[in-house]
Amino acid sequence: MKNKGLLIVISGPSGAGKGTVCRELLRSFNKNLELSISVTTRKPRVGETEGVNYFFRDKDEFARMVEDGEFIEYAKVHDNFYGTPKNYVMSKLEDGKDVILEIDMQGGMKVKHVFHEAISIYIIPPTFAELKKRIEGRGTETEKDICKRLKNAYEELGHVNNYDYVVVNDDIKNAAKKINCILTAEKCRLSRSNIDFDKFREG
Amino acid sequence: MKNKGLLIVISGPSGAGKGTVCRELLRSFNKNLELSISVTTRKPRVGETEGVNYFFRDKDEFARMVEDGEFIEYAKVHDNFYGTPKNYVMSKLEDGKDVILEIDMQGGMKVKHVFHEAISIYIIPPTFAELKKRIEGRGTETEKDICKRLKNAYEELGHVNNYDYVVVNDDIKNAAKKINCILTAEKCRLSRSNIDFDKFREG
Repeated sequence: MKNKGLLIVISGPSGAGKGTVCRELLRSFNKNLELSISVTTRKPRVGETEGVNYFFRDKDEFARMVEDGEFIEYAKVHDNFYGTPKNYVMSKLEDGKDVILEIDMQGGMKVKHVFHEAISIYIIPPTFAELKKRIEGRGTETEKDICKRLKNAYEELGHVNNYDYVVVNDDIKNAAKKINCILTAEKCRLSRSNIDFDKFREG
Repeated sequence: MKNKGLLIVISGPSGAGKGTVCRELLRSFNKNLELSISVTTRKPRVGETEGVNYFFRDKDEFARMVEDGEFIEYAKVHDNFYGTPKNYVMSKLEDGKDVILEIDMQGGMKVKHVFHEAISIYIIPPTFAELKKRIEGRGTETEKDICKRLKNAYEELGHVNNYDYVVVNDDIKNAAKKINCILTAEKCRLSRSNIDFDKFREG
């Protein structure tokens, strides 16, 4: 993937603050960065726009896209499907854009399986107690939902060594800054460098 | 090397500006960083201080240290010996300090052989033409020395893929900033992380 953009997988338990950190990263640091847009079969909510928040497709069209291998990964969540569109992501990378996929661990692992060169970052809250507090504090979820999220978070944390990097979200700006550093560093990797050393030597 | 400092090898052809970039890095960014001090058999120059610029030792003592395995690597340059003292570096790392070794490629490779977890960074000037200009522009060297330096640089650049990272020194502040990012990113690597995830989950 020389000369092309970086593909970045960002995951983390709900309550880790992935979305907020990604928005801060896009806002403050990296002008060359884009958040990937998922395809979903769920209905648009008020204020959501096609091609901005999601690509909205019906279930038949989604099934066809699955059939035709148009997703890097997809998953069913409750009654709806969500997928990462391969062509959309590839064309951004070809244009030299760095693309963030904010997806769950299972999806993240599928992406790494297809794109070995993807960079995977797992965001965690400072403590598990803080995670509990954040999930409970939302006040929008039932006791059962809270338990499920905590159980999922607990299980995921046992597999966090699947990821390349872990960033503690103790402070949103600080976490975004660290991710920005990870992207800067990865661009300096010899294995990704677009410097032609043979040409350089003759220059 | 969990919980300990990072060992950083910085190399690059003469004229790449390694020294200037390292000083900028120490000055502006990373308070936890130290430049390693080499042992040498050469006589102190005016203004050089024992334990600040070098550890000055006579040839017999240097030979004894080689014999006793007290160097991570050592080399003969012209008529003098230079070595990286193992105990000095190890005790800094144990204290949690990040330690920079500013050494040549041959030394760098020896360090990587002993410390697999060392981070290696190769600094290059923006173009080879610029490197020529910088080496020639010093005005302190003979035609023969200039030729030798250019030949060495040319040869080294053929082996630069031995390094983890390459940083183009187009601007001193910018190059120092990139190295600072590399260190930040490396500290977020799961493989170096000092987070105890089992403990975290129970917390």
